[in-house]
Amino acid sequence: MHFDPRWDVIEEQYGRNSGHYESIFTLANGYLGTRGATEEGYWGRVSGTYLAGLFDAAPREVTELANLPDWLSVELNLAGEAFDLTTGEILDYFRVLRLKDGVLERFVRWKSPRGRISQLRFLRFVSIYDQHLAALRIEVIPEDYSGTIHVRSRLDGQVTNSGTQHFAAVEASTFGERGIYLISESYEQRHLVVQAASHRAEGEILREEFANGPRRMDYSLELAGQEGVTNVLEKLVTTFSSRDLEFEGRQKSQEMLFRRTVKGNREAEREGFASQLAKHREAWAKLWNKADLTLDGPDFDQLALRFSIFHMIQMAPWQDHRVSVSAKGLSGEGYRGHVFWDTEIFILPFFLYVFPEEARLQLRYRHHTLPGALRKAKENGYEGAMFAWESADTGDETTPTVGAIDFRTKKPIPILCGEIEQHITADIAYAISHYLHVTGDREFLQNYGADVVLLGARFWASRVEYNSALDSYEIRNVIGPDEYKEHVDNNYYTNFLVQKHLLLAQELMVDPQCRQTADYWGFTAEEAKKWAEVAQKIRLPRQGDLLEQFDGFFELNAIDVLQYRDTPGTLQRAYGWREINQAQVLKQADVIMLLHLFPDEFTPEEKRANWDFYEPKTMHDSSLSAAMHSVVASDLGLSQEAYAYFEKASRIDLGNALMNSGHGLHAASLGGLWQAAVHGFAGVRVKDQVLKLNPRLPENWSELKFNLQVGTSLLRIEVTQEQAVIALIPADPSGEAVQAVQVRIGDEVVILNQDCDSVRVCY
Amino acid sequence: MHFDPRWDVIEEQYGRNSGHYESIFTLANGYLGTRGATEEGYWGRVSGTYLAGLFDAAPREVTELANLPDWLSVELNLAGEAFDLTTGEILDYFRVLRLKDGVLERFVRWKSPRGRISQLRFLRFVSIYDQHLAALRIEVIPEDYSGTIHVRSRLDGQVTNSGTQHFAAVEASTFGERGIYLISESYEQRHLVVQAASHRAEGEILREEFANGPRRMDYSLELAGQEGVTNVLEKLVTTFSSRDLEFEGRQKSQEMLFRRTVKGNREAEREGFASQLAKHREAWAKLWNKADLTLDGPDFDQLALRFSIFHMIQMAPWQDHRVSVSAKGLSGEGYRGHVFWDTEIFILPFFLYVFPEEARLQLRYRHHTLPGALRKAKENGYEGAMFAWESADTGDETTPTVGAIDFRTKKPIPILCGEIEQHITADIAYAISHYLHVTGDREFLQNYGADVVLLGARFWASRVEYNSALDSYEIRNVIGPDEYKEHVDNNYYTNFLVQKHLLLAQELMVDPQCRQTADYWGFTAEEAKKWAEVAQKIRLPRQGDLLEQFDGFFELNAIDVLQYRDTPGTLQRAYGWREINQAQVLKQADVIMLLHLFPDEFTPEEKRANWDFYEPKTMHDSSLSAAMHSVVASDLGLSQEAYAYFEKASRIDLGNALMNSGHGLHAASLGGLWQAAVHGFAGVRVKDQVLKLNPRLPENWSELKFNLQVGTSLLRIEVTQEQAVIALIPADPSGEAVQAVQVRIGDEVVILNQDCDSVRVCY
Repeated sequence: MHFDPRWDVIEEQYGRNSGHYESIFTLANGYLGTRGATEEGYWGRVSGTYLAGLFDAAPREVTELANLPDWLSVELNLAGEAFDLTTGEILDYFRVLRLKDGVLERFVRWKSPRGRISQLRFLRFVSIYDQHLAALRIEVIPEDYSGTIHVRSRLDGQVTNSGTQHFAAVEASTFGERGIYLISESYEQRHLVVQAASHRAEGEILREEFANGPRRMDYSLELAGQEGVTNVLEKLVTTFSSRDLEFEGRQKSQEMLFRRTVKGNREAEREGFASQLAKHREAWAKLWNKADLTLDGPDFDQLALRFSIFHMIQMAPWQDHRVSVSAKGLSGEGYRGHVFWDTEIFILPFFLYVFPEEARLQLRYRHHTLPGALRKAKENGYEGAMFAWESADTGDETTPTVGAIDFRTKKPIPILCGEIEQHITADIAYAISHYLHVTGDREFLQNYGADVVLLGARFWASRVEYNSALDSYEIRNVIGPDEYKEHVDNNYYTNFLVQKHLLLAQELMVDPQCRQTADYWGFTAEEAKKWAEVAQKIRLPRQGDLLEQFDGFFELNAIDVLQYRDTPGTLQRAYGWREINQAQVLKQADVIMLLHLFPDEFTPEEKRANWDFYEPKTMHDSSLSAAMHSVVASDLGLSQEAYAYFEKASRIDLGNALMNSGHGLHAASLGGLWQAAVHGFAGVRVKDQVLKLNPRLPENWSELKFNLQVGTSLLRIEVTQEQAVIALIPADPSGEAVQAVQVRIGDEVVILNQDCDSVRVCY
Repeated sequence: MHFDPRWDVIEEQYGRNSGHYESIFTLANGYLGTRGATEEGYWGRVSGTYLAGLFDAAPREVTELANLPDWLSVELNLAGEAFDLTTGEILDYFRVLRLKDGVLERFVRWKSPRGRISQLRFLRFVSIYDQHLAALRIEVIPEDYSGTIHVRSRLDGQVTNSGTQHFAAVEASTFGERGIYLISESYEQRHLVVQAASHRAEGEILREEFANGPRRMDYSLELAGQEGVTNVLEKLVTTFSSRDLEFEGRQKSQEMLFRRTVKGNREAEREGFASQLAKHREAWAKLWNKADLTLDGPDFDQLALRFSIFHMIQMAPWQDHRVSVSAKGLSGEGYRGHVFWDTEIFILPFFLYVFPEEARLQLRYRHHTLPGALRKAKENGYEGAMFAWESADTGDETTPTVGAIDFRTKKPIPILCGEIEQHITADIAYAISHYLHVTGDREFLQNYGADVVLLGARFWASRVEYNSALDSYEIRNVIGPDEYKEHVDNNYYTNFLVQKHLLLAQELMVDPQCRQTADYWGFTAEEAKKWAEVAQKIRLPRQGDLLEQFDGFFELNAIDVLQYRDTPGTLQRAYGWREINQAQVLKQADVIMLLHLFPDEFTPEEKRANWDFYEPKTMHDSSLSAAMHSVVASDLGLSQEAYAYFEKASRIDLGNALMNSGHGLHAASLGGLWQAAVHGFAGVRVKDQVLKLNPRLPENWSELKFNLQVGTSLLRIEVTQEQAVIALIPADPSGEAVQAVQVRIGDEVVILNQDCDSVRVCY
C-alpha cells in the first residue's frame, strides 16, 4: 500500500482514541457530514451524521445539530464468527484519510478467535459532487478458509446525541431489489429526513433478507465465501431533508421528499459506485486545483495545511445561505453545531481569498439570522442587532446558560458568554469590511452587508455608556476574547472593534448604495453623527505603547504563567477560578488578536511591546490562540516563535500527543493555521483590493505556493527565502475577463494586467 | 470458589451473549430492577434500570418502562491501562448469580495488554430489605505490580431505551464527602427521579474529584495500588421517584424527594455496605423459607425451579397496587414493561399459593386500572370494562398497532391483539375466581373483585352477537390464545372463559357482599338474567369429544407440523403468513390451556382426545406453551411427556442453547414452570379452600417438597413416588390462629386441624 506523507493522514494501529480519529476522519461536503466511525460497532463508537442547519432541541436543552440515523452500520460475520477487532488478532492494519481524493480507507488482515484469516478493505466517501450521496464499499477475502460471509447493513435510527433522541421513525421499508429506507422526523422542529440505501454485492449470494426493528431497517446478505475469492458489498446512501424543500420555497411533503430520495438513489445506483467515486474525485481535484497550498519543507507541515484546507472545504455550506461553518464543522457534537466568532475571524479568511463566493454565503448567513439578532437586542434592552454568541438556525442566542459544576459551591458554573461576550457583533462587521476590501463586492454590500453593519452600529450606540467624568464612551461588563476574565470594563479588543464598526457604519450612511437600506430601517444623519462621536470618544485604555486588555488589567496580580503552560489543568489546580479571574493570566490571544486583525493600526514598537507583555502571560488554553500568535510573531520578524506557534497549531487536531478532538475538529485552529501560512509567512494583506506581500518563510521552508483571488483576479503566488513571484492566472475562457490588480511588495508597487501578468521580486 | 449447583447460576466464560446474561442476571426487588450489565462499558451493553410503573412515552411511540440513569457505571484504569476484558488476557473468570442471597458476583483474573495481572471481584445487590437501595462493591488486587488505580464511578443519564430518551437532567451535584446525585425528569409524564450514590474506599487515596457532563455525574478516585494489597470501592445508591409521593397522596416536590433520597442514602452509608448486605440476605432467607420448593432429582431441575421462584419474587411489586408483573418483569425492554394475561394466568398462581397478599396486590392492579378498561370499552363501542391486551400505568390499551414489516407488501404488519385478543377480560375474572377459591378473601371481593367481575360481564354482554339461526350467542372476530390465527369466530377458549365469567358475575349479583357494588354501577336483575342467558347459549363448537379451537378449525388444511417444530423460522419460510393462518397449526396451547385451567370440567376421555389432536399440531413458538403442556400431560398420566415439556420450559431462560432472553426474562414461562411442578407433578388443585392432591412425580425425582397457603392455613407438602405427607405449619405465635383445612388425596378426604395436624397417604 502506497502512502503519500504529504497527502495521507494515517492511523497505523487499531487503538483506543477512537473518538479522536472519528473526528479527524470525518467526511463531509458541507451539506452532510459523517464522523469516521467504523462500520461495525464498538463500545464508545460515536457514529455522528449531521445535516448542516438541521437543528433540534430536546426539552430543557439548547438546540443542537441532530444526529441522523447511522448509515455506516454494517456488521460482518465471517464463517460464524463476528468480525470484531477486539477479539482474535490483528495481523495488518491501517486507516488512511486520503485528502487528495476525499476518501477514507481501512485495511485489516484479521485472524479470528478460531484462527481463520481474512483480509478486509473498507472504502468510503461523502460525495462532494452530489451533496445528497454517501457511499461505502467493503471487500472481504477469506484467506485460508471457505465459509458463509454474513453481512448486515443497516440504517440505524437508534442513535442519539449523547443520549438525546431527536428523531422518531415515521416509516421504514424497502425499495427496488436491495434498497432500504428510513423516514425520520425530528421531535421539536419536525424536520423530515429521508435516507435510502441501495446495495450491490459481488460473490455467490446464498440468501438475502430484510428486517426491521424500532427505528431501524436492515438488509442482510449471505455470501458463499470461497478461499482466496474477493467478496464485495457496495452501499449507496441518499439523504434529503425537508430543509431542502424549504430552501426551494416548497411546503414540507413526505411524499415528495421520499420520491426525490429514492429517485436520486436509483440514479446513483444505475451509474454505480465506481462512477460516483470518479465524479467525487474529479470534484476534489478541481477544488484542490484552486485551494492547494504547497510548501517545500517538512512533510508534516504540508500535511497539516492540507488537512486544514480539506476540512474547511468539507465544512463549508456551498449552496445554502441559511447555514454557516460551526465551531466543529460537521465533525462532532462539541458546541452542538453552533456558529461562533470563530467563523468570521478564523475560518472565513481562507474562503475570502480562495472561494469568495463561499465566504459570501457565510456572511449571508449573518444577514439571514438578523431577526434573531434583532430579538436578542430587544430582549436585552438594546436597539438594533445584537448577534448571538452561539448561533444556530434562527440567530437567537443558543449559548447554554450553565456549564460544569463548581464542586465547592455545588452549583453549576454560569456561562456568561451568551449575555456579555458581545464582541461578536463587531467581529461580523470586521469580516464584512474584510470581505469588501478583498472582493469589492458592492452588490453584497447593498443587499446584505449594509443591513448587518448598520443595525449592528445601532446596537452599539444603545449599548455604550457615557462617562462624563472622563468624557468617554465605555462598554462595561463584558467578556473579551480572553475568556478567563469575566465582567470586565472596556475590553480594548471589543472597544477597538466597536470603534471600527461605527466608523464603517458612518461611511455606509453616505454611500449611495446603502441609501435604501438606511431609509428602510429609518437611520438618520443624527444617528450617524452619534456613531462618529462614540467612535471618537470610546475608551481605549493604554499606558504608553501598552494596550491594556481592560480597565485595571495592569493592576492585577502577576503569576508565573509559564510553569503551568504546557501541563493542562495545573493552573486550575493551583488557583481557583476567582483567583485566575484576578490575575495577569490570559486563556488566549486578546490584545494580540487586535495586532493581527489591524496590522496597520499599530506601530512596530507598539506591537513588540504588547507581544512582550502579553505573550508570556498567555496559557493558550484555547485552540484559538496559537495560530494567531504565529501570525503576529511573523509580523514582528520573530521567525522562530512564528514557526513554533505554527507547529503548535498544526498539532491541535493532527498531532499524536493531544488526541482531544473526540467531540469534533477545532475548526478555528484549522482556519488559523492557513492564516499563519498566508497572512503570517507570506505576509499577505489586502486593502481596497491592493495586495500587499511581505514574505518571511520559516527557516526550514524553501518555498510556499498558493492561489488567491483579489477582486476578480486570480493570482498565483510563489514565495521562497529569496524572492516572490506573483502571477495572474489566465481566466477560464468562459469566465469574466481578467482585471488588473495592484500589488505591493515591500515598497515596490506593481500593477499586473494582461500586458504584464507577473512580477518577480527579490529581497 | 464454591458453587452450589442447586442454587447458583453460573457464567463460566466471558462471552458474547451479553444481552442474555444481562437479563437472567437481573437483580430487582419489585420496585427497582437492574439488568446484569457489567460495571465497565462494552459495545452492546444494555444497562437497563427500571422502576415498576414508571412509564413514559416518546412522541409517536407507545408508553414504556423508562430506562433510568445507569447507576452501575464504574470504569477502572489500572496503572494506566483501561480495565477492558476485550483486551489483554482473561486468566480466570466467572459470574455467579447466587439465588439464595440475591447477590451477583463476578471474579476476573486479568492480564493487561502490557502484561500486568490483576484480580478483580465485583459484588452487587438490589436490596430486597430496602426497596430504594442498590449497592455494589469492587475489589482490586494488583497481583504483580504497583500502580495507580483510577476509579470513575458514575450516575449516567446518557442512557436510552434503544435510542429513546425519556429523561432530562434537572440537577446534578454532590453531597456529603463522596456523594453524587442526579435529578431527572421524564419528558412526557414529568416523573421526577432522584438518585444519590455515596462511595467508600479502602486503600491509599491519592486524589478524589467530581466531574459532570450532560446528564452525568462522576466521582473519580485514585488509589495508590500496591502489589498484593486489596483496594475496595463500595457504592451505595438510593433511588426515589415522584411516584412514591403520589402513592402517599402527596404533591410532587423536588425538594422533598431530594431530601428523602439523600437522607436515605446517608443512613445506609452510616450503617455501611456489609450491614445492608446482611439485611438483604436475611430478607431473602425469610422469603425462601416460605417459597422454596425442593426436589430430589437432577440439580438442573432444582436450579430451574429456584430460578423461576427467585425471579418471580424479584418481579413482584410488594407494596404497590398501582403496578403488576409485566411480561419481562424489570429485566429488559421487551414488551416495553407492559402487563399481559401472562400475569393472571401464568404468574399469579405462584403468588396465590405462596404469597397471597402479593397476589391480592396484582389483582388490585386490575381494579386500579378499571378507568382505562372502561375507556377502552367505550372507545370500541361496548359497555362495561374491556381490559387492555397490553396494560401499563393507566389501564388504557398500549399494544402497538403495527410490528415488523411484511417485505412482500412493504408495509408494517398490523398487530391486532390490542383490538381483538379479548380473552384477557375473562382471564382476569378467572384469576379472581381462582384467588377466591384459594384464599376465601371476601374483603377483596367486596372492595375490588366485584367491580372488576361485574363490569367485565357487562362488557361481554355488549360484545356477544346473537345468531338467531342457531339460537346461540357468538363472539366473532377475535384472536384466541393461539396467535397464529387472527379474525376467528367463537374461539372455544375465549367463549368458555366468558361463560364462566358471566356465571360468576351472576352469582355475585345475589351475594349480599356485592350488593353495594352492583347498586353503585346500576346493575339490575334484568342484566344478570341476560348474563345467564348468554352463558347458557354461548357457542362452544365441538365434534364429539373434540373441542374445536374456533369455527372451522377442523376444515383447515393439515400440514406436517412436527418437521418444523424444533427449528425456529422454518415453518415461516415454508409457508406464508396467510397459509399459516389457514392451516391446522398452533403457535401455542389454546384448547390445551382450557384443559389446564378447568381440569374438572372435562372428562379424561375428552382431555385425551384433545391432547392427541392438538399437541402434534402445536409449534410451541411461544414461551407460554411448553409448561402448560407439561401440566396437562401430568393430568393425563403422560409422565414422560410431562417431564419433557417441563425440561423444555426450564430451558427457555436458563438453558445454554437458546440464549434468546436478551430483551428480558420470559416471566410467563417462569410461572408456568412452577405450575408444572405444583399443579402438574404434585397435582395440587384448590376449590372452595379444599386442597386436592394428585401426585405423579417424574421418574427421576424421588421427592418434591414445598409450602402452600390455603385460606389462612400454611401447609407443608412432601411428595415422593410412593406417598405424600401434608402437614399444617404451626402459625407464627403472633399471627392468626391456625384454621382447619380440608384435604383430598385420591378419594380420601382428611381434615387437618390442631388435633390432627398432618396426614400421610400412600399410593
